[in-house]
Amino acid sequence: MKNNSITALLGIRYPIIQAGMVWASGWRLASAVSKAGGLGLIGAGSMYPEIVREHIQKYKQATSMPFGVNVPLLYPDIDKIIDIIVAEKVPIVFTAAGNPNLWTKHLKSNGCIVVHVVSSVKFALKAQEAGVDAIVAEGFEAGGHNGREETTTMTLLPLVKKAIKLPLIAAGGIGSGPAMLAAMALGADGVQVGSRFVATPEASSHSAFKKAVLEAQQDSTELTLKELTPVRLLKNPFYDKIKALYAQGTSADELSQLLGRGRAKKGMFEGDLIEGELEIGQVAAQIDRILPAAEIVNEFIATYNEALERLKKLD
Amino acid sequence: MKNNSITALLGIRYPIIQAGMVWASGWRLASAVSKAGGLGLIGAGSMYPEIVREHIQKYKQATSMPFGVNVPLLYPDIDKIIDIIVAEKVPIVFTAAGNPNLWTKHLKSNGCIVVHVVSSVKFALKAQEAGVDAIVAEGFEAGGHNGREETTTMTLLPLVKKAIKLPLIAAGGIGSGPAMLAAMALGADGVQVGSRFVATPEASSHSAFKKAVLEAQQDSTELTLKELTPVRLLKNPFYDKIKALYAQGTSADELSQLLGRGRAKKGMFEGDLIEGELEIGQVAAQIDRILPAAEIVNEFIATYNEALERLKKLD
Repeated sequence: MKNNSITALLGIRYPIIQAGMVWASGWRLASAVSKAGGLGLIGAGSMYPEIVREHIQKYKQATSMPFGVNVPLLYPDIDKIIDIIVAEKVPIVFTAAGNPNLWTKHLKSNGCIVVHVVSSVKFALKAQEAGVDAIVAEGFEAGGHNGREETTTMTLLPLVKKAIKLPLIAAGGIGSGPAMLAAMALGADGVQVGSRFVATPEASSHSAFKKAVLEAQQDSTELTLKELTPVRLLKNPFYDKIKALYAQGTSADELSQLLGRGRAKKGMFEGDLIEGELEIGQVAAQIDRILPAAEIVNEFIATYNEALERLKKLD
Repeated sequence: MKNNSITALLGIRYPIIQAGMVWASGWRLASAVSKAGGLGLIGAGSMYPEIVREHIQKYKQATSMPFGVNVPLLYPDIDKIIDIIVAEKVPIVFTAAGNPNLWTKHLKSNGCIVVHVVSSVKFALKAQEAGVDAIVAEGFEAGGHNGREETTTMTLLPLVKKAIKLPLIAAGGIGSGPAMLAAMALGADGVQVGSRFVATPEASSHSAFKKAVLEAQQDSTELTLKELTPVRLLKNPFYDKIKALYAQGTSADELSQLLGRGRAKKGMFEGDLIEGELEIGQVAAQIDRILPAAEIVNEFIATYNEALERLKKLD
């Protein structure tokens, strides 16, 4: 695969970015992906600032390959996280869930490449205006927090591609090389892959959660809690409680109370499949084994090339 | 584009099928698409049996190219429709929204090619077992009636491809040649295109509805009425009434009463944008002009080839 705008921008071999997922994406996973030629991201969303620093430093000890930190902009200690990123000279920052005007200039003036995650054309344009270097367009099928528009990757990508001039990364539903090829056909320059990298030995997620991901079928996830922040969850007894509240005609307050604090940690990090929140994408239905992150990167490239050869034969 | 399993099965030049949409897909649209090298379908879902016969006969007067009839299996007068299809020697039947065991054998023993539309792996397997010749896998982004699983085209296609051995047609979110290429990358052998063909002079939809489709933006549609039969609608005052019922904590009965009868005809055929039901896919946001059906087919092939050339250059 030749160099393109994303591999050139990020200094990587393959345009495959491992998503900075809460409770999954620490230095181990990020360094395994980067060493394999993709881009590893440390997911700051589930880390206290000092833990972020620790993961950045451990990453640097593991490899000198490029890496990034994913920062949800609504993070309460955002200024501390940004200070650490700047002090540690993190080369790449993926920002999400917030206003790209807030930190883009500061990060860029400190030498960071900034990529912003959006689920709509409107926010893609806002991010471009804020001066980011690339956009991630994330479709409805993605795991975890997601847009209210419910636009799928297949329909979102052409809209964003038409609206912006920046390099474009597709996210949501990218579980294999053929899906990566599909995203590139739709105009993406690279892909961000989340769920597949949860099912790796390097992900810091609890083994019980990883096992639940392997067992997931086509209808095992749902985008819910739209009154708060929409999130795609694996259906489990905690999800059943959410549904029971909806059936009674619930309020955002009640949902917020049920959600409480620490549900995501309880589910994905501590492995409580009953009471925990289990965030994963629709791709979970395609995952049937735990593979080292490097093997996933290699499988993506091999099956991407196979799928491209199939398309060429149709020509 | 070379012959593949879908073009060979259906006897067409390009693996592009025009969906048999209610209030849009009569003989005019179907014959225009078939003459252009795709497969036109007459949508029986919104027609009395004698009207179906009339459209079949007018189609045959217009062209001798292959065509099909789309039949929702829950249609109340289904036996009459099937009799007409057999009597008129319709070469291809697309069945949807019902049990493929009911009519597949009868249709095949009368020389019809039978294709069944599904939104899940489970029903794809059922259809294969029932002896259909090909499967349409339709994702969450599609307009009109849709599955409860909410699985998007990007994630549904690899699952169905892996599960079945039959030729596979992708539907939902296919609004351009690059999206067609994406579907083929994911393992499809052809595509079914709905929304784009609403925005043609040949579609029998009301011009006010066509205009509303041109104006649709990214968040203009929603999959709703999940308690009845899930359907993707354009948001309009009728949709607002549905939302108001939901906000009050509604029941399936109340929704059913609001929906009443004839809402789809009122909206899409009579052009009542206030009180009518307007069914369209997420692709609507990509549509900005009315084009003759043949031009849409040609544009698909041209932009498919352009996108394939771009992918080859990355290789």
